[in-house]
Amino acid sequence: MQFKAIAVDVDGTITFGDRRLDCRAVGALRSLSLPVVIATGNILCFARAAAKLLGTCSTLIAENGGVVECEKVEYDTSHMKECEEAFEFLKDHFELERLDSEYRMTEICLRRDFDVQEAGRSLAGFPKVMIVDTGFAIHILSRSINKGRGLIKVAKMMGLEAKDFVAIGDSPNDIEMIKASGFGIAVGNAHPDLKKAADMVTEGEYGAGVEEAVGELKRRGEIR
Amino acid sequence: MQFKAIAVDVDGTITFGDRRLDCRAVGALRSLSLPVVIATGNILCFARAAAKLLGTCSTLIAENGGVVECEKVEYDTSHMKECEEAFEFLKDHFELERLDSEYRMTEICLRRDFDVQEAGRSLAGFPKVMIVDTGFAIHILSRSINKGRGLIKVAKMMGLEAKDFVAIGDSPNDIEMIKASGFGIAVGNAHPDLKKAADMVTEGEYGAGVEEAVGELKRRGEIR
Repeated sequence: MQFKAIAVDVDGTITFGDRRLDCRAVGALRSLSLPVVIATGNILCFARAAAKLLGTCSTLIAENGGVVECEKVEYDTSHMKECEEAFEFLKDHFELERLDSEYRMTEICLRRDFDVQEAGRSLAGFPKVMIVDTGFAIHILSRSINKGRGLIKVAKMMGLEAKDFVAIGDSPNDIEMIKASGFGIAVGNAHPDLKKAADMVTEGEYGAGVEEAVGELKRRGEIR
Repeated sequence: MQFKAIAVDVDGTITFGDRRLDCRAVGALRSLSLPVVIATGNILCFARAAAKLLGTCSTLIAENGGVVECEKVEYDTSHMKECEEAFEFLKDHFELERLDSEYRMTEICLRRDFDVQEAGRSLAGFPKVMIVDTGFAIHILSRSINKGRGLIKVAKMMGLEAKDFVAIGDSPNDIEMIKASGFGIAVGNAHPDLKKAADMVTEGEYGAGVEEAVGELKRRGEIR
């Protein structure tokens, strides 16, 4: 199989655990001639900055799939009301710090310093929203939003299918993207649930994992 | 002289001419134990993303000094009216594409595809604003805003003086910062006007220049 593009998560995949860019991943991604799409839980302007600094293409998946950009930006704020209601409810039971609220359009992002499992259980009365822990932040978002749906959208905007993509990630919020893609890769430091869903698990961690996967798929002639 | 912090421009200084991060600069900046302050003409959320990916400190100079952040964000929009008026005037004479207007708070940024010298001359009727060409974009901003004033502000917020800083840049919009700092460095690819204002001009270009300057100042024992 010859793949036509790669979707790559940022935090914990091309960065170290402390969110600093791992230059081994930078070199590997820059060695490719096919489009590299950043797919992050972070806000659109972070995704744009990362793509600019990496030199990857300007097609982007941000806010865990809630926001996509391919020449034009597409997002749907129709679930924000439910997210806000869930947030207001949680605020009465947990000490919450909201992040990037002036930039975030489709979901709510919280500092990762409260009991997320307990919080998730307490949201039983909000069936349309879910809590996602990326290992870097906690997101309250619609159950209809995930990076897999984001990948399907950007693939279409690029004239491709999601199955034309290789996808690389580290966290449970990458599972749907890994599954929607034609070939899903979990880096060595990935969450066990992502490793289970992946077609390939690298030995290397963080950027070394990206380097290893890119090298292997190039050797197989499946990416270039 | 023992310096206490470094202010570093992004585009053309720690990036190549195409704005892709030069990992040689990343390594050099990460080898330092003193605070590294990103100082960019770009918007605050770009500066935040760059600092996160580089692993530098969260104190930032953005929008050419119009926006500074050190725990809290400080900016003054009082000159935007004049910038908007100058922009409206220019629009009648040049084909202009405005960039990042939803994020930019203190100045107007334009795609670099019109005659900037001619545009600068035609703004004689707007004495309070100036046009700045960074080599990457064109900025319409107040004459009272520059990275030197930005540096003085963040130094104060950090409990330091601007003279406690080493500053590194490549472009005329770095001149005031280089002059306000205790030791100003122009990378090898810098504009001749910046080289004239600098205390040191590196042989290396882009990240190699940053690496060279950091190495030299470490050898002298002036930074650590």
